[in-house]
Amino acid sequence: MSVTVVDVEAAARRIAGRVRRTPVLPVSANLSIKLEHHQHAGSFKPRGAFNRMLSAKEQGKLTGQGVVTASGGNAGTAIAYAARELGVPARVFVPETAPAPKLARLANLGADVVQVGREYAEAFAAAEEDGAATGALFVHAYDQPEIVAGQGTIGLELLEQLEAFDTVLVSVGGGGLIAGIATALGNQARVIGVEPELCPTLHQALAAGKPVDVEVGGCAADSLGARRLGALAYDAVMRYDVDSLLVPDDAIVGARLELWREYRLAVEHGTATAYAALTTNTYRPAPNEHVVLISCGANTDPATLS
Amino acid sequence: MSVTVVDVEAAARRIAGRVRRTPVLPVSANLSIKLEHHQHAGSFKPRGAFNRMLSAKEQGKLTGQGVVTASGGNAGTAIAYAARELGVPARVFVPETAPAPKLARLANLGADVVQVGREYAEAFAAAEEDGAATGALFVHAYDQPEIVAGQGTIGLELLEQLEAFDTVLVSVGGGGLIAGIATALGNQARVIGVEPELCPTLHQALAAGKPVDVEVGGCAADSLGARRLGALAYDAVMRYDVDSLLVPDDAIVGARLELWREYRLAVEHGTATAYAALTTNTYRPAPNEHVVLISCGANTDPATLS
Repeated sequence: MSVTVVDVEAAARRIAGRVRRTPVLPVSANLSIKLEHHQHAGSFKPRGAFNRMLSAKEQGKLTGQGVVTASGGNAGTAIAYAARELGVPARVFVPETAPAPKLARLANLGADVVQVGREYAEAFAAAEEDGAATGALFVHAYDQPEIVAGQGTIGLELLEQLEAFDTVLVSVGGGGLIAGIATALGNQARVIGVEPELCPTLHQALAAGKPVDVEVGGCAADSLGARRLGALAYDAVMRYDVDSLLVPDDAIVGARLELWREYRLAVEHGTATAYAALTTNTYRPAPNEHVVLISCGANTDPATLS
Repeated sequence: MSVTVVDVEAAARRIAGRVRRTPVLPVSANLSIKLEHHQHAGSFKPRGAFNRMLSAKEQGKLTGQGVVTASGGNAGTAIAYAARELGVPARVFVPETAPAPKLARLANLGADVVQVGREYAEAFAAAEEDGAATGALFVHAYDQPEIVAGQGTIGLELLEQLEAFDTVLVSVGGGGLIAGIATALGNQARVIGVEPELCPTLHQALAAGKPVDVEVGGCAADSLGARRLGALAYDAVMRYDVDSLLVPDDAIVGARLELWREYRLAVEHGTATAYAALTTNTYRPAPNEHVVLISCGANTDPATLS
């Protein structure tokens, strides 16, 4: 199963007016930053969430039972936001260990939060079961075609917003974002995944020849801590020859502070991960190579920037 | 003495490549935010600073003596930044009461910081005298034609970046920014000044029929606390019929938190002042009126956003 650029184009039409068309900040002659952290709900995730829900609605599959998902992070927040905007209920399953601020954020968006099990896997299984039992639409955090296609609309916007660019640096967790962008851009730009050494889902999938479960942790696990690369993401990275670069946590922390100091961008560690590929010279652009960085989220405590 | 749109157009050519062309974020159908806080040095001020220095350079008036100014805030920071970029020394006069973080910021940019007197007026007089005595170029924080013309380049960018807009909300301190933008836009849009009740330079100038000294204080005094509207700003606001709206400090504080919560914009109270005109309904746009907010600076402690 593959997502195609036609799917991404359909997603763009479907979610138009529901998501913000985030602008691109040219910070130097050869570096631009797509300010996607200004998206509703503080990350790129509403693009996929709206596309999944609106696709289902077109097919009569978005009922009064609403949607169900498993995620206490950016995906859950975005799904709760999109459900509220579309006027349907959202049930969000999270582990019993989910911290209070995340529960409050979901509740503030009107979601029904259900705490199940000690591990994310248990909450995930409960959410799938709930969807099957109630008829609520199950929305995955990253591994559904409509999710990937929705995130890919960022790539289509880049093609319209920039006259030319060579390379896009994308932070990778479950891989929905990079899969969508790679699909949208095809051979029009090189797409490179950047991961924390402590959350190497793409790296390990490339090494194993398939998505495999990995241990995750470190400063960016909050947004990039998916346990396994999505099957759709693996398909896309193989199809479009996407590489993975690894960066250490201390570089991510430093890159995040530099984004604030140099550009007044207050973003989460997940966003800083992609930038860290540049600050560490893990990725060295050629002299006239135009690099685009996707600033994918800002659900962060600004106190940690001062 | 008036600044004209021809001056602003010349400024745009002069400073091209020196300043960032900051993008516009469409946050809703009828509200866009110009993200000028991503400018070098964290505020719009480098536009005027570069224009002043490069104009002088064209006339052989930027010598090895460099530049001199009086400002511990955004203007001083921008002038120190621009001087460093142009490879000339900067002397920045500040009162003896200037806080250590501001002194450090200026010193980090390579400026020679001189502390004189208990009041800003004494530092200002010392800076002017220094310029006259040494031949260093005196750069005003807001009331010089090249400064106003430089800040006005924001208005020219808006005309290129947006298909149509009706109204621009601009926070006002000494008035250099609003004067430049009003000049650049002419009759193409309405420009409205927004001031803290505790920093009413424009309001009091309009009431008195000329710029007058005012008491300044409150949460936004750091960036908007000029004691008196510039003569050039007064000329521009009379010429282009610019009004002043006043907003209370608690509304500014709340507006700043809302800009973070809703849009993930981490900005200073000076920026939030303009937004507070909307959150308080002090300015009520017509149903289809397209409003542009200038996010003019983010030299702020992010800790105060969490």
